[in-house]
Formats: sequence, C-alpha cells, structure tokens
Amino acid sequence: MPVPGPGYAITARVEVPASASAAGDLTVAIGQVGGVVTALDVVESHTATLVVDISCNALNEDHGREITEALDALAGVQVRKVSDRTFLLHLGGKLEVQSKVALRTRDDLSRAYTPGVARVCQAIAANPDDARRLTIKRNTVAVVTDGSAVLGLGNLGAAAAMPVMEGKAALFKRFGGVDAWPVCLDTQDTEEIIRTVQILAPGYGGINLEDIAAPRCFEIESRLRELLDIPVFHDDQHGTAVVVLGALRNALRVVGKDLTDCKIVVCGAGAAGSAIIRLLESSKPGDVLAVDVDGIVHPGRPGLDDNLAWLAEHTNSAHVTGTLADALVGADVFIGVSAPNLFGAAELETMADRAIVFALANPDPEIDPAIAARHAAVVATGRSDYPNQINNVLAFPGIFRGLLDAQARDITDAMLLAASAAIADVVAEPNPSFIVPSVFDPAVAKAVAEAVRGAARVVHA
Amino acid sequence: MPVPGPGYAITARVEVPASASAAGDLTVAIGQVGGVVTALDVVESHTATLVVDISCNALNEDHGREITEALDALAGVQVRKVSDRTFLLHLGGKLEVQSKVALRTRDDLSRAYTPGVARVCQAIAANPDDARRLTIKRNTVAVVTDGSAVLGLGNLGAAAAMPVMEGKAALFKRFGGVDAWPVCLDTQDTEEIIRTVQILAPGYGGINLEDIAAPRCFEIESRLRELLDIPVFHDDQHGTAVVVLGALRNALRVVGKDLTDCKIVVCGAGAAGSAIIRLLESSKPGDVLAVDVDGIVHPGRPGLDDNLAWLAEHTNSAHVTGTLADALVGADVFIGVSAPNLFGAAELETMADRAIVFALANPDPEIDPAIAARHAAVVATGRSDYPNQINNVLAFPGIFRGLLDAQARDITDAMLLAASAAIADVVAEPNPSFIVPSVFDPAVAKAVAEAVRGAARVVHA
Repeated sequence: MPVPGPGYAITARVEVPASASAAGDLTVAIGQVGGVVTALDVVESHTATLVVDISCNALNEDHGREITEALDALAGVQVRKVSDRTFLLHLGGKLEVQSKVALRTRDDLSRAYTPGVARVCQAIAANPDDARRLTIKRNTVAVVTDGSAVLGLGNLGAAAAMPVMEGKAALFKRFGGVDAWPVCLDTQDTEEIIRTVQILAPGYGGINLEDIAAPRCFEIESRLRELLDIPVFHDDQHGTAVVVLGALRNALRVVGKDLTDCKIVVCGAGAAGSAIIRLLESSKPGDVLAVDVDGIVHPGRPGLDDNLAWLAEHTNSAHVTGTLADALVGADVFIGVSAPNLFGAAELETMADRAIVFALANPDPEIDPAIAARHAAVVATGRSDYPNQINNVLAFPGIFRGLLDAQARDITDAMLLAASAAIADVVAEPNPSFIVPSVFDPAVAKAVAEAVRGAARVVHA
Repeated sequence: MPVPGPGYAITARVEVPASASAAGDLTVAIGQVGGVVTALDVVESHTATLVVDISCNALNEDHGREITEALDALAGVQVRKVSDRTFLLHLGGKLEVQSKVALRTRDDLSRAYTPGVARVCQAIAANPDDARRLTIKRNTVAVVTDGSAVLGLGNLGAAAAMPVMEGKAALFKRFGGVDAWPVCLDTQDTEEIIRTVQILAPGYGGINLEDIAAPRCFEIESRLRELLDIPVFHDDQHGTAVVVLGALRNALRVVGKDLTDCKIVVCGAGAAGSAIIRLLESSKPGDVLAVDVDGIVHPGRPGLDDNLAWLAEHTNSAHVTGTLADALVGADVFIGVSAPNLFGAAELETMADRAIVFALANPDPEIDPAIAARHAAVVATGRSDYPNQINNVLAFPGIFRGLLDAQARDITDAMLLAASAAIADVVAEPNPSFIVPSVFDPAVAKAVAEAVRGAARVVHA
C-alpha cells in the first residue's frame, strides 16, 4: 500500500501549551492518524505557550488535512498555518526566461536589438520560413490549456492550471532540451481556443495541448492540425497512447503473445482511451473492446457522439454488448484510463491466461495493483510507487525534440508508432517488473527523438 | 556624420579570378563606396578562381547592399552569399526557458509535478490572487505586438516582429531582472488583439505593448487597462515619454529654465508624440504646440481623430495655426518623434535663446544633430553615436521591476512621472552632453523601480 511521501509533506506551525508533554503529544497525534513526523522545531517560546513547526509526510491532500485536524483537536493546541515543501518549491513560479546572447556592450545592443535586428526582421518578412532559423520558433513549444481538465482535479480554470503547465515546461527542458512556455487560456469556448492558438502560432515550433476536457479536445486538435503549419500534439491523448503501446509491446514480449492474436479491453473512452485505441488500430490488434460508463461501445448503442461512433465502427468486430465484467471474459489485455476500483479478483480471473493489466487511473487504479499482481502476468499503473509506471514523460520530451529537429510541419501516426517502439526498445530484456525504462534514463528521449526524426524523413522523402 | 558600424557588419563570400590583384580589388571596391573592410579570408583555392570571405562594417542596410553590388559589378567576381555577425547572433533565437527547480530525483518530480503540484493548483483555484505568489505571473511580462509598426520598418507582421520582441525580452532580463516573453499576434484586428491579450493574461503580471500602429494602439491600451487587473504599458508611448521627460528635466537644469515658463513644440502626433504631450501636461508646462504632417494641431483643424482632438483641446492655448517653422518661432524646446530632416539652421535660429532640441527620429533625426549643436544649448537624439541618447531601455526594465515588486494592478501617471524624475536624478550634475545616464549604469533600473514602488505604495495607502 502507498506510504506517506514527500509530494505531500506538510509543515504545521502550531501554538501549544508550554508543558513538558506538549511536543510529544503532537507527534503521537500525527502518528495515530498515519502521518510520519520528519522534523520538529520550536520557533517561539513564551511563559504559557510554545510555537512549534512540525513537519511530516502525508499520504495525500486529504490526509494532510486529517493530520492538521488531529493537531487542532488537541486540548490547548492551535494550528496557525500549514505549509509544505511543495508550496515552497513553487513560490515565484518554476520557470525563468534567459537571454542566450550577452548584452555587455553597445555593440552587443546594436546587434541583438536596434539597429542590427532590423535586417533580421526584414529577412523573415521576405521569407517567413526563416523564422524557424532566426527566432525561438526553432526550439520552442507552447503548452496550451484551457484549465478544463487539470490533472484529475477537473475544471479549475486558467490561473490554477499554471503550476501544471510550468511543471510540464520544466520537464520539456529537463528531458528534451525543448524550450516550452505555459499558455493558459482564460476561455473554454472551442472556437476561441482554436482562434487564439492560431493567432499565437508564429512564435512557436509546435503546440502541446494539455488538460483540455473531452470531447472539446478532439475538435480543437483536429482543427488546429488543419490550420497550422506546425505539429499539434495533445499529450493526454497521444503521449499516453505512445507510452501505453510501448509498454504493451514489451509486456507482450514478456508473456509471449502477439498483438494480432490478442483481445484487448480499453476502459475509458475519453481523450486517453480513444487515442490508445486509434493508435492500437494501426497495429492490427486481434480485437479491441472500448468500454465506458455505459458499458461496451457498439454500433447499436444510442447517443454515440462523433468520437464514440468512430470507436464503435473500428472496434468490437463481433458487436458484443455488456458491462466491463462481460468485456473482461477471455481478454488478454486490460488497459484502464478511467476511474478507481472498477473490478476485483473475480473479474480478473475470467481473463485469459497470462493476462496483462494496465490500471492507469490516478491516483487510485481501476483495480488494486496488489490484487492484480496475484492473477495477472504483468501489471502496470500510473503511479511511481509500483513497478512499471506508465509516465508520459517517457514520450513528449523526445517526441518534440525530434519534431523540432526535423522542422516537422505535422505529426503522423508513423512518428507516434516509431516513438512507441523506441521507448520499448530501450529496455533490452523486459521482465514482468520492467517493461518501461526509468524516466531518468537519458537514453529514452534520445531514442524517441531519433525515431521521430527518422519517421519525419520518410514523410519528406 | 555616422560611421560604418558593427550593427551593420556584413561578410560576403565571393568567387574571384585567381589573379594577384583580385583580393586587393575587393578592398578597393568596398572602400570606394564607403565600407570599412575588417577581415579577408580565402576559404577555397582553385586553378582559375578563389573563394574569399570579406567582412566589412557598413552604414546601414542599403549601404550593405551597395557594397554587395559594388563587389558583384567587378569583372569576374561573383557574390555567392552575404551574411553578417548580426544574423549569426540571432540564429536559433535569443531566448531560452530555464527551470528554476532541480528535477534530479523522483521526489523532485513529485513536488514540482504530479502528485504534489495538485495542491498548488487547488490553492490558486480557491484564491486566484495566489497566482501572483505561486506561479511565474509573479515576475513575468508579455511583450505583445501585432507586427504592424515594427521599429521604423512598418507593417511586417507577427513572425517578422519576433526578433525585436525577443531582443526586448532579453533587455527586460538584463536590465530589470524581469522574465519577459514575446507574444507576436497573427492578427491586426483591434477587437481580436484585445480579446487575445485578455485570454492570455492569467499567465502574466504585466503587459508591455510594443510596435502596434497608431491610432489602434490607443484603443487597445485603454480597453485592456479597463479589462485587466495587471498593468498595461505601451512602451512606444509611455516608455518614450518617461525618458523624454527625464531628459528634458535635466536639459532645463542645464539651460536654467523652468518648464512652467517654456514654449514646447512636439513634432509627431503618433504614439510617442501623444504620450509625451499627455505626460508633459501633468507637469503644467508653459505652452505646448503639437505639430504633425498637417501642421500645428488646433481645435479648428478639420478631420481631427479622437487623439488629435484631445491634443487640440489640451495644447495650443492661443489656438495658433501654421507650419512647423511657424511653431518653432520663439520655442524653448523642440521634441521631434516624427521624420528625418524637417528643418535646418534657419528655422532653428528663430527659436528662443538657449534652446533645447530633442531630434529623436531614427535613424535620421529631424535636424542634423551637428547643425543643431551649433545653435541649440542642448541637443539629444535617438542615436547611440551622438551624446544624449534618448533610449527607452532607461525606463521599461525598471518600471516593470517596480510594478511587479509592488504587485501593481495598474499603472498611473504618478508612477511614470516618478520614473522620469528618477532617471533624471541619476545624473548628479547634468551638462549639455550628459542629460541622461548611460543605459549600462546599474543605478538607473534600481532608481526607477524604487520610484515606481514608492508611487504604487501611495496609490494603495
């Protein structure tokens, strides 16, 4: 089971009675609700009271609150303020803009700015494609959101999405050497989002859409792909699909099965699930069943939107109907990108022999991974505290590194499949606990970028 | 007169006959058209031909072309390619995005990104003002243009404006420690520009409008100031006005005159001229005449737009009419932000005794500064090759440093006047050749920021 970790470490500043047992009472209270105390400092001492900073790891946000409440409930104790190392890290934001050119002398200014810069502007005006060579468009990606589906938190809006987009930009730089900039849009109107991105596009060599709610995200992406001459990538869709397919490739090696013979259940038909199915389809799988809250997707189901209609047409060749439990019977692979705790051991046991289970709902998977591991041959989750974490960081930095290097104008399924194979192939000998490389393995982004560049060359040849 | 400089240095790669005199012929040809050769390298040698890289400083872009044509016109010489140090400096763009947080370990990822970041997002969703504390909004400014008035080059569009906006962002960081990001909009529709900036605003702590054509720039600025809760500043207007007023303050000290007694002619009624007049008006000058291509602005002039109507109402108390030459008679101060070579010694001699001339048209001033210096007591230009360069770099980095530090929600004339006085006061003892500090003087941005913070405190008090 999960243990209290640093992502949710808090520090509570509390006023306690100046008694000998006061500090010890705090530690006991935290321990009783499952927190792990890591530090205790007295910051003020008065005749009747002490002010103490007590730090502890927590399981999650609710647990942090539970700990705070447990402290507040102690006789004579008053919690003044709760802070945490995470907030301190985010203070002032996580990105900065640096000049790549020195501005030490007047000659430097003459070249980097006026009057010298004028000639560079005129060169681009005469040949707009020079912008890919003479401006930051060369290496810069917009990380665009409308804040409508921030992580698993829902519709928090543009301002509250900034910390995620900044983090994403930091990951782009750290793992792909890509300059990425957070673009949080204060509108959730599909047409306005499309138009705004189009208006901003001159400054960017690629667009990474992020945390935009389905089904709006599908139209925004497809329309922008038509409108722009730079690649448009929705990470929640394609990033996830690339990593899932890479992991699946290695999982199938582990269990000795071939994709073309497999029955695959994909649970969740939102952005991620739909993209996984679309990318799977180009690899000719045995059969795929898409399942959502209304059960198995089939052509006769009422109320299918455009996306579900496409899925109904391209999956479920036998037109079966039923629930997730029905779908799982005889399935070789379960891929969940949906909701917590949808099934247990009973359903799992109906799956085919040497089953593969990717339970990727975050933070709580579709099935308890400990239970899954007792029945399935390979288990993967989205979590960092189990083996086989399906993490988009394996894909997007290398994909955009490759796209920018190739000065690609669009992104193709061939590029995504090449990226997927490259991630898988970084693992020389996959085993049940190691089907994807570590996110810190520097070989990953390099291999992915090379694969994308290669696929881009084929397109242009 | 101007001399060939590094801002316009070019390197021509030329194929020449393999004769003893070939290289010397190149140097002579360049010298004959006024170029200054700085280097000559043979890069290829063949039986009949040599390939030579010849570098020289030029006066301006046209001069660079003239030099290239002079080379091409030589018998047997073929110019293969012309490049320059300026272009090399701009290659790949001038900015990069850096992460301020280390991403070395899984714990780092847990705090900077998921799952830890979720709590930061929720804090901002609960209290939107926390974005100024927990995101890059704290220290980040958008440098926004529609590319409609790029430098003096005119309407080059969004992509071609990027090199200027990148350079501006580099100056923001270098002189003010402000993270600035180029936002080049691929639209020139006033309503779309306003709406786009509004949609982008959550990610920024301030908006610096740049190189947007008049009169569109006035409406965009005033509407955005109403719509947004962050300061909106049009540098071509207010940056110029702040530096001009600072320089004027010291010039008046040099000539021993008082602003309230002065007759001031402002030539040019676009963005810069109008802003100078508006800021001047709050300092109660003696009288101001605004002059544009149609002569002195007065209430009876037909065809006045909103901006000119305001100027007509607030200047020219005697309702005089006439040309620039008429306006100059008896004037104590000339401030030109208009066009090259509008007048000469004859008109200058009609000005009041100990006249002040700011001839700021770039690159060629309203009057030859050498001629102006023979008659006026103080002369300033926009050029770096004369004394008293009126350069906006003296203002905008410190102004936004102060605005961001104060978490200001708007920008007031009081702040601009304080900034203006701060720039002037960095010069302890002004003299005719030193009315503004050097752009490299670190005291400038510091003093300006402090002045703006002080004015912001007064607003909030």
